[in-house]
Order: sequence, then structure tokens, then C-alpha cells
Amino acid sequence: MNTLIGNAVVGQSGGPTAAINATLAGVIRGVLENLHGGSIRTLFGMRNGIEGLLEERLIDLGGLFASEDKLKLLELTPAAALGSCRRKLPDIKKDPAFYERLLGIFKKYDIRYFFYIGGNDSMDTVARLSEYTKSHEYEMRIIGIPKTIDNDLVGTDHTPGFGSAAKYIATTVQEIIRDCAVYATKAVTIVEIMGRDAGWLTASAALGRAVNGVGPDLIYLPESPFSMEKFFEDLRRIHKEHPDVVVAVSEGIRYEDGRYVCEGMSARGVDVFGHTALSGTGKVLEFAVKDELGCKVRSIELNLPQRCAEHLASAADIEEAVRIGKEAVAAAAGGVTRRMMTIERISTNPYKYKIGHADVTEIANKVKKVNPEFINAEGNNVTDECVEYLLPLIAGEVRPLFDRGIPVHIII
Amino acid sequence: MNTLIGNAVVGQSGGPTAAINATLAGVIRGVLENLHGGSIRTLFGMRNGIEGLLEERLIDLGGLFASEDKLKLLELTPAAALGSCRRKLPDIKKDPAFYERLLGIFKKYDIRYFFYIGGNDSMDTVARLSEYTKSHEYEMRIIGIPKTIDNDLVGTDHTPGFGSAAKYIATTVQEIIRDCAVYATKAVTIVEIMGRDAGWLTASAALGRAVNGVGPDLIYLPESPFSMEKFFEDLRRIHKEHPDVVVAVSEGIRYEDGRYVCEGMSARGVDVFGHTALSGTGKVLEFAVKDELGCKVRSIELNLPQRCAEHLASAADIEEAVRIGKEAVAAAAGGVTRRMMTIERISTNPYKYKIGHADVTEIANKVKKVNPEFINAEGNNVTDECVEYLLPLIAGEVRPLFDRGIPVHIII
Repeated sequence: MNTLIGNAVVGQSGGPTAAINATLAGVIRGVLENLHGGSIRTLFGMRNGIEGLLEERLIDLGGLFASEDKLKLLELTPAAALGSCRRKLPDIKKDPAFYERLLGIFKKYDIRYFFYIGGNDSMDTVARLSEYTKSHEYEMRIIGIPKTIDNDLVGTDHTPGFGSAAKYIATTVQEIIRDCAVYATKAVTIVEIMGRDAGWLTASAALGRAVNGVGPDLIYLPESPFSMEKFFEDLRRIHKEHPDVVVAVSEGIRYEDGRYVCEGMSARGVDVFGHTALSGTGKVLEFAVKDELGCKVRSIELNLPQRCAEHLASAADIEEAVRIGKEAVAAAAGGVTRRMMTIERISTNPYKYKIGHADVTEIANKVKKVNPEFINAEGNNVTDECVEYLLPLIAGEVRPLFDRGIPVHIII
Repeated sequence: MNTLIGNAVVGQSGGPTAAINATLAGVIRGVLENLHGGSIRTLFGMRNGIEGLLEERLIDLGGLFASEDKLKLLELTPAAALGSCRRKLPDIKKDPAFYERLLGIFKKYDIRYFFYIGGNDSMDTVARLSEYTKSHEYEMRIIGIPKTIDNDLVGTDHTPGFGSAAKYIATTVQEIIRDCAVYATKAVTIVEIMGRDAGWLTASAALGRAVNGVGPDLIYLPESPFSMEKFFEDLRRIHKEHPDVVVAVSEGIRYEDGRYVCEGMSARGVDVFGHTALSGTGKVLEFAVKDELGCKVRSIELNLPQRCAEHLASAADIEEAVRIGKEAVAAAAGGVTRRMMTIERISTNPYKYKIGHADVTEIANKVKKVNPEFINAEGNNVTDECVEYLLPLIAGEVRPLFDRGIPVHIII
């Protein structure tokens, strides 16, 4: 291993999570605690990811976060404190000028370490940059650090940010179930949860059943084909047992033929309503059930709070997010490059894990679906095995700093 | 004052809140702690409010909640643990048989104390029952105890349940603001908040500005007439300052001519979309802004979690909710009847209050609007006076019992 001395830059990219700032804090801690053995001089933060880097909008993070209080605040501030972007990098052969420009910036600031915290698309950025710099004489260490509430990255047991989103979803669904239980009249409540291609977040809606003995009566994931007729049957069956049916559904569920339910057509080919842009999956189901069963139906879209409800973050998730950031610094200084940091589960009960890394080119642009054994045979709920697997990821509560009843955020 | 010895019954009615079980726990504590000086023998709970009473679905609450642990769990379990109903009592002259039936049940169970925890409609029930029993020889003490997230009851400074909803809204809006700040592209995010006739909940969206220095750029309450053209102007002006505009809006905002915005028509008389039942206020504004400004627009309906997010309840609210329940027991034993318990604010800074009571017939079927001095001159935000007034109600955090990452609820 050769020592590489220079500056480092860290960026955040893609959708916000409740843990992405914890990972940023981890990288800063890794540098401040000298886990790099003297290799990193200054740690820059790029504003708005790679876009800000291109515009040389860089800030000195070591200076800004010299105090422990500020780092603690950063860890429990939701969303990306540095700002984010959703920019796909061009093909290297088609637009070499783009990469030359980036290389020029790296050289200008003597940047030898590049840390990029993000999801699937961001790992594509890391892979392309790795490929480009590999074939140039300017030595760099390029590391992706995963974050996504969707938990759909391959090569890692789970992703930082997922546990906090899962805890928010599990808790909120428990509260909704209690709310729906108060009336004695027949009703259906449909909770729409994020996840276009993978059902991890929606599966988390079940977690409360391990504690309070109740969960959504029905859970539909994108991994199982959806049938409106079967759904109506399920509802009628459960209505015979109790009046308050609660359903958790992924925004990305599809019919057998591959059409998204949210495309706005009922299973019987009837256009449920006019404006297709309005048709969230929950709304489509709400109107279909209203038509079919005639009872009170409500749909609830959990929406942005799923990814930014920091006040209910998972302590386990935040701890892992910080740790993976710190270990990325140590790994890079130790010679690791062109890799994404990963979480490897050692055991579920008791929960044990370690941090590792994997080839980033094997990760970008792939989707990790929910394991088949985590979905029941009917495709309308998750198994107890799934609940056991997910529970350690939502363990523990964080204690954000509150002032006059409001969580304090750091704004940089 | 004459001593009245017999049994008591307590019920919960109307929409759930995060504090209605705390008030129930307060009534139980009041009985268990003998604040009634030996007047109350058994405390019954009616399932599903007055509906369950009519069906004699009564449970012995003193026996069920003899342990402190269970009372603590009840205080931090969301929604109405006894179940609720939305039944309007008939006119006494038109349907005397209904009241005779109720009186028969009171006599059968020797019920001399009637506690009803609810909002506006529930106070109508208390008023009618008070009127009926007044003119009959069977002596009873009938007490209403307020709860509603809407905070729209007259005769009380505020209502238990409001503070917790306000804290959830203020915190969630702060988290959404952070989430929206990550991208550098022009966008408008519209947060739709409950409140058909009164804007108290929507006003709470502003509270975070006292702590983090940021709040929604625009806040529209039902108390001020809404103009779509003025809204567009406001958005254009703010977009010149920063790209991420966040708007908080009451579901009940109306145009100058009294039409609800959620009726689905734009200010220019164009039908924005087909299915009127789909048109939540946030969605109507989302589509109108998309058409007019052409930028990215998202609407978020906070929905049921506003009233059941127990995990983020206000400690001040829960404490007051318990206390008002306890004091209702003492007041009734002391001879008070045909009254609603109230919270009287003594001072805002430092916050001090006392529990009182007021004539329930003066309260039912009235709506307390947001004070005019709490709304700015442009009608598009709230004043600092409003923020100062509301802040004490969201003070302090509760510590629900968590098991494996999930809040434990009591289900009875």
C-alpha cells in the first residue's frame, strides 16, 4: 500500500434521507480523528454534489465542524446539509471534455480523495469517475458510500437511511391502525408507501405486529403482481372479521401484465378518473374500493416525511451511518478505491454486522428486490422471517436537541 | 353542595387525538386517587361513546387500570382507547323515547356522573343530556371535557390534543423544509393541513421559525380570503429570493366569494381536473401552480398522522390533558354539572394556566377562529405574536415506551 497525501472532497447526491448527514458527519469525524494517518490535509464539502464541484463551490468542513456540538447537530439534521443534485455523468468517450474539466478541478485543489454519499445513480457517478481516473496518471482514491431509504442497492445487506425510514413507517402505521380502530363502521384505509421497484419500505409497515400484535391486514409489494379482483376478495374476507381494514401498498405495484396500478386504470379497464397525473397508487385503489365495496375509504400517502422524519430516526441506523462514513476515510487512506462501502450482516439474533466494501461497477444500476421468502404465498403480506430480519435495523431511539418544543437543525 | 353517591361513566367521542387517552387516564386517576371524596363507587367506560352506552357495552375502568404501568401506556397510546362515535343526539321534544332509554340505563347502573371527552359535536351531546336530566328527578352531574386537534372550541384558551398536533405539524414542516432545500432547482412544495373552519393547526406550521429561523414562506388560513392571482404573485416574488418555496395551507381556505378552493375550480373558472372528489386543496393548488409557473410542484397532505402521531406528542399537552381529566372528577363531585372543563391561560411568558369550567350550552356548535392579530396584513402568514402565543403548547417531549424500536400501545 502506498501513502497518498492530499486533500479530500465529500458530496451528497440523490434523494435526502434521515441518515445522510450522519454519514457526512462520519466522514468529517474520520478526518478529524485522523483515521487516515496523516494522509488527508483538508476535507472539502461540495455543495449540491457533483454540480457544485464543477462550479468549485467548496467549503472547508474540518473548520466548520471543529466543535462536537455541531457534529452532533449535523448527525440529527434531516436531508443533505451540503445540498444534493440528480445529475447523471456523461459517457466518457462521448464527452471527455467533461471529465478533463473535473480532473482540472481535482488538480487545482490537490484533491486525492473523493467520497460520494448516494444511492444507485450516485454509484454510477462513482463508477464512471473511477473508470476515468484509472486511466489517467493523477492518482486518486474514489469511494462510494451508500445511502437510500429504498434499501435497493445490491452488494450490501442494507443501506444507511433505510432503517430510519422503516422505523418512521412502522411507527406511523401503528398509529394509523389505532386511529382507524376507533369507529365501529366498515372502512378501508390505504397507506401508500415509497418504493417504485423494491418493496422494502412497504414491508416495514408490518414491523409493529411483533410488538403490539397488530399490523396492516394486507401488504402489497412491487415484487408480487397485483390483482384488483383478488384485492376486493381479500377486503371482503377481512371485513367479516373486523370493520377497520388497513392496507399498506407500495407506490410501484403492478398488474400481472406489467402496467403500474398508478397508471390510473382499474383492473377492469375502466378509466377511474380524468387527470392521470393525479393518480397515485393509493388514490387509484381508494376510488376502486369505493366503487366496489361502497364503504368509507381513505388513502394516505406518507410522502416526504418517510425520508426526512429525523425526530424518529433509528438509533441503529444513525450509528451505522456515522460508522460507515468514518470507515470510508480509513479504507481510502489504506489504499481502497473504486469501491462502495458496504454493511455485512454477521447475525440477526443477536444483531451483528461489520463494514466492508465491494466493486462499485457491480452495484450501479442494479436493484435489490425483497427476498422471495419474505413474502407470503398469497402475495398479500410479509412473513415473520421478514419481520425478524428487519427489526434490528429500526432498533433504538435518537434524542435530537429540542428548543421550545422544536428539533434544532443545523443549516450550512 | 350536596354529596351525590353513585357510579360514573366516561366516554370518548368524535375524532381521535394524541391526548384523548391522556384525559381518559386523568379521569381514571381522579377516581382511583379519590378526588371525589368517596362519591364515586365504580367508573365505567362506554365503548364507542354514546352508542356503546345505549347498547350497555360498559367496562370497569378502575379494575382494568389498577396498575400505574397500564395508565402510563394509556396516556401515550394514540386515538380513543374506548372507541368513539359520531352520533348527534336527537331533539328532546321530537324523540323523548331516546332520552328515556338513556335514563333507564343510568338508573339501571346507578350512574350519577357522566364524563364525555370530545369536541364541538360532543359538547352538543353534553348540552342536550344536561337539558334533559335537569328536568327529571334523577340527579346527575354531567361534564364535558374538551379535546380536539382543531382548537376551535370557544370558552377555553385551547383544547387538549391541539398542542400535540401542533408540535407534529411544526416539526414535520421543519423537516420538509430541510428536505426541500437540498436541490438548487426552482420548486414549490405545498403542505395541506387539517382545519376546515379554523386555521390554528396551519398556523402551527410557523413555529419552527422561532428556533431554526426558517418557516413556510407562505401560510394561508381559512380566516383570510384566498386569491389565486395573489398566490402566484407571492410565489414569483419569493422565487427571486430562493428556489425552494414551501407553502402551508389549510384544507378549508376559500375564495373571497366563499367557495372552497378544494371545490376543484381554479380562480380563473377553469376546471382543473375531472374527478371533483379527488380535489384536496393541496392538489388543486399543485395543479394550478404547475400550469402557471411551470416549475416542479409537489403537494403533501399531512393527513391522519396530524391527530395520532403520539410519538411526537407535546409533553405540555399530555400533562394538561391528564390534569383536566382529574379535575373534572373533583369538580363533578363538588357539585359542578352542565359545564365543560376549560383551560384558562394566566400568562404566556412564563406560561401559566389553570383549569376552570364554563356553561356547555354557550360552547356547543360555535367555532373559535384564529385571532385577527395573529394573521399578517397580507393574509399570507402569521405574526410573531401568534408564534409566541402557540409555543408554550408544544413544549416538552414525551418518552413513550419502545420495544424493539416500536412504541408500545395499549389495546383494550
